Amino acid sequence: MTMTAEAAAARIAVRVELGTRSYDILIGRGLLDVAGSEIAARLPGARAAVVTDRNVAAAQLPRLAASLAAAGIEVVPVIIAPGEASKSFGMLEHVVRQVLAARLERRDVVIALGGGVIGDLTGFASAIVRRGMRFVQIPTSLLAQVDSSVGGKTGINTPEGKNLVGAFHQPELVLADTGALDTLSPREFRAGYAEVAKYGLINDAPFFAWLEANWRGIFAGGPEREHAVATSCRSKAKVVAADEHETGERALLNLGHTFGHALEAATHYSDRLVHGEGVSIGMVLAHRFSARMNLCSPDDGRRVARHLAEVGLPTEMRQIPGELPDADGLMALIAQDKKVSRGTLTFILTHGIGESFIARDVPPAEVRAFLRETLEA
Amino acid sequence: MTMTAEAAAARIAVRVELGTRSYDILIGRGLLDVAGSEIAARLPGARAAVVTDRNVAAAQLPRLAASLAAAGIEVVPVIIAPGEASKSFGMLEHVVRQVLAARLERRDVVIALGGGVIGDLTGFASAIVRRGMRFVQIPTSLLAQVDSSVGGKTGINTPEGKNLVGAFHQPELVLADTGALDTLSPREFRAGYAEVAKYGLINDAPFFAWLEANWRGIFAGGPEREHAVATSCRSKAKVVAADEHETGERALLNLGHTFGHALEAATHYSDRLVHGEGVSIGMVLAHRFSARMNLCSPDDGRRVARHLAEVGLPTEMRQIPGELPDADGLMALIAQDKKVSRGTLTFILTHGIGESFIARDVPPAEVRAFLRETLEA
Ligand SMILES: NC(=O)c1ccc[n+]([C@@H]2O[C@H](COP(=O)([O-])OP(=O)(O)OC[C@H]3O[C@@H](n4cnc5c(N)ncnc54)[C@H](O)[C@@H]3O)[C@@H](O)[C@H]2O)c1
Ligand SMILES: NC(=O)c1ccc[n+]([C@@H]2O[C@H](COP(=O)([O-])OP(=O)(O)OC[C@H]3O[C@@H](n4cnc5c(N)ncnc54)[C@H](O)[C@@H]3O)[C@@H](O)[C@H]2O)c1
Ligand SMILES: [Zn+2]
Ligand SMILES: [Zn+2]
Repeated sequence: MTMTAEAAAARIAVRVELGTRSYDILIGRGLLDVAGSEIAARLPGARAAVVTDRNVAAAQLPRLAASLAAAGIEVVPVIIAPGEASKSFGMLEHVVRQVLAARLERRDVVIALGGGVIGDLTGFASAIVRRGMRFVQIPTSLLAQVDSSVGGKTGINTPEGKNLVGAFHQPELVLADTGALDTLSPREFRAGYAEVAKYGLINDAPFFAWLEANWRGIFAGGPEREHAVATSCRSKAKVVAADEHETGERALLNLGHTFGHALEAATHYSDRLVHGEGVSIGMVLAHRFSARMNLCSPDDGRRVARHLAEVGLPTEMRQIPGELPDADGLMALIAQDKKVSRGTLTFILTHGIGESFIARDVPPAEVRAFLRETLEA
Repeated sequence: MTMTAEAAAARIAVRVELGTRSYDILIGRGLLDVAGSEIAARLPGARAAVVTDRNVAAAQLPRLAASLAAAGIEVVPVIIAPGEASKSFGMLEHVVRQVLAARLERRDVVIALGGGVIGDLTGFASAIVRRGMRFVQIPTSLLAQVDSSVGGKTGINTPEGKNLVGAFHQPELVLADTGALDTLSPREFRAGYAEVAKYGLINDAPFFAWLEANWRGIFAGGPEREHAVATSCRSKAKVVAADEHETGERALLNLGHTFGHALEAATHYSDRLVHGEGVSIGMVLAHRFSARMNLCSPDDGRRVARHLAEVGLPTEMRQIPGELPDADGLMALIAQDKKVSRGTLTFILTHGIGESFIARDVPPAEVRAFLRETLEA
């Protein structure tokens, strides 16, 4: 393996423990430039298809292509339209057929270079081409580096719902080049940051406190960024290792997501609200609702809102541009997302910062009353 | 579990050992009528989607629907066009969306009622809906009962090739109602029989001898039929248990398939030659080629051809209606199917009946010469 001292110094490795399917997440500035040698060392002789979107192709593909070429890896690029709409059956077929047309075989590799959309779509395509191709994730959005590239969930959307079709397919390697985030839009960066904060709020109060003190370094691209990405990956990897196929504790990762998804649905997944913004508001609501249920102090919700607002994330439903449904309308969207089981809802609630838990018996009437109060306030 | 004494008497169970994903294949006349109670006993409370094609729906769906209804299982039927063309991305999307529209959840079940086309397509759809739904196979063609329903391979075709896209997804249960084969066309029945004979030829000479003596009972629907299906399933289950993801010995199941696939491709997968007919000719060719390589006696090929011809299967390339490519054309199709690795071909050859083996170093020139001689004879 050849690598510059500089790249080696910047690198943090997080191991995802999944038995024979264990793999490394490498995190560091400049990893794109050594992607070729890292992949060649692990998958000698493999040819590669690189799936990416037009935005990421413009910003980052030349560096990856150069690095793969330098390592002697033959590459077929597959460049698709950016945006959530690409997580479709039609685009899945397109990517699958491009990979087949490139005559890649099972020993070759499919590389996803992009945000969560590219990762989810490409991971799914690589799961089904020849019943499973080797797969490398190179996440280029903050959300993808701390969330979607970890855990092996892949998939697409259909008119029936988001992420209802897919596969569990673990990558061989994840390369998170924190420098690649420099070309991400500030809004997308902030949206990803909501998921970073989530890991603190779930079960790591010291990390949340560290974020309060150090977030500026993360945004500015200092070494705090690698620490934040690594801490997030470690946190998710631990949950995933304990519950690969999402039957139990993995649900904690949905903190803020029940409210968030309802708001995303209410705004028709438009750019009125991107996913991380919905999660930001949803996490604040989860803390306030927990306080209303006497599970934690109202101060916790205030502290969460203060920090998320400080980094520039929305924290209140009224910050969403345009009209929102009323409490009944939001409840209907929540019920659609979560399926009411025997009249109660499962929610991620909290006893305080870093003390989230799965509440399986939340009375819908309480949620409705809470939403009504909040919307009318 | 409630069942009639009659059904219990007719039943043979074959266990497929795959650790936590082990399951039973039940084989017997009349199983469709107890499918409801068998499924309800294993998957209590599950709702079901039944995917089938129009031919099978007409011949067998009413019995299955009655049995599921009697067991209190709510059913959503999904009826598609018969034929290999249904193993497509478009039909996959259709089936997936029908299952989602039925609001089936992970604890519910998707049932495939039909031949290998329905089993492969439905198994794949159930593998990807919600990243994996429970799945029951009710194979209704002889090929599906002895081959495609065993082993967990699912998938679809694309213009790039057959079965290049799919998943490994094991069923919870396979119900092979040998009585359902009574409505199968004689040509399809014979085609499936080629795969039955294959199990004898691979590694079970006594079974091949038994088939020579008892094939009439299989075709007539006597108890020989259950024995033949069960012996075939046991044989395939053993190979699959040893090599679930097809990295080694599972290749033996391809006896006769390299030549067969080339002939199917040469006839454009038309009804000039159905799959089992290609396999029949291919198995004869594999024995003759093995004799030519001094691996077995020419008598073996003669004996194989005699038996397959006796049941009404084609055994010679010249029996295929219409023009065939010449030896070079067939070699090109073989190379496309198998990928020549470092100038040699991998073939399933044999030391005699029941003594097949994987030959990884077959010189293409020998195969070409053999095909030329055979075509000119
Ligand atoms: N699989 C999982 O476990 C999981 C978890 C969370 C989210 N997700 C999925 O992730 C998706 C959202 O991911 P996302 O927020 O990364 O969206 P995205 O992939 O659409 O990326 C956001 C935008 O940023 C652009 N972009 C990405 N990296 C860039 C870079 N370095 N420079 C310039 N532009 C860049 C993209 O082109 C896109 O326009 C959703 O589909 C969601 O369902 C999956
Ligand atoms: N997954 C595997 O391991 C595996 C193995 C071998 C073959 N296959 C696949 O299996 C497929 C071929 O299977 P097949 O030969 O069963 O084809 P098929 O499913 O097309 O069935 C053949 C015909 O018989 C009809 N039919 C089936 N059962 C009937 C019944 N009981 N009564 C009346 N009509 C009936 C069907 O409608 C169809 O017209 C191919 O696509 C092949 O790739 C898969
Ligand atoms: Zn999220
Ligand atoms: Zn076959």
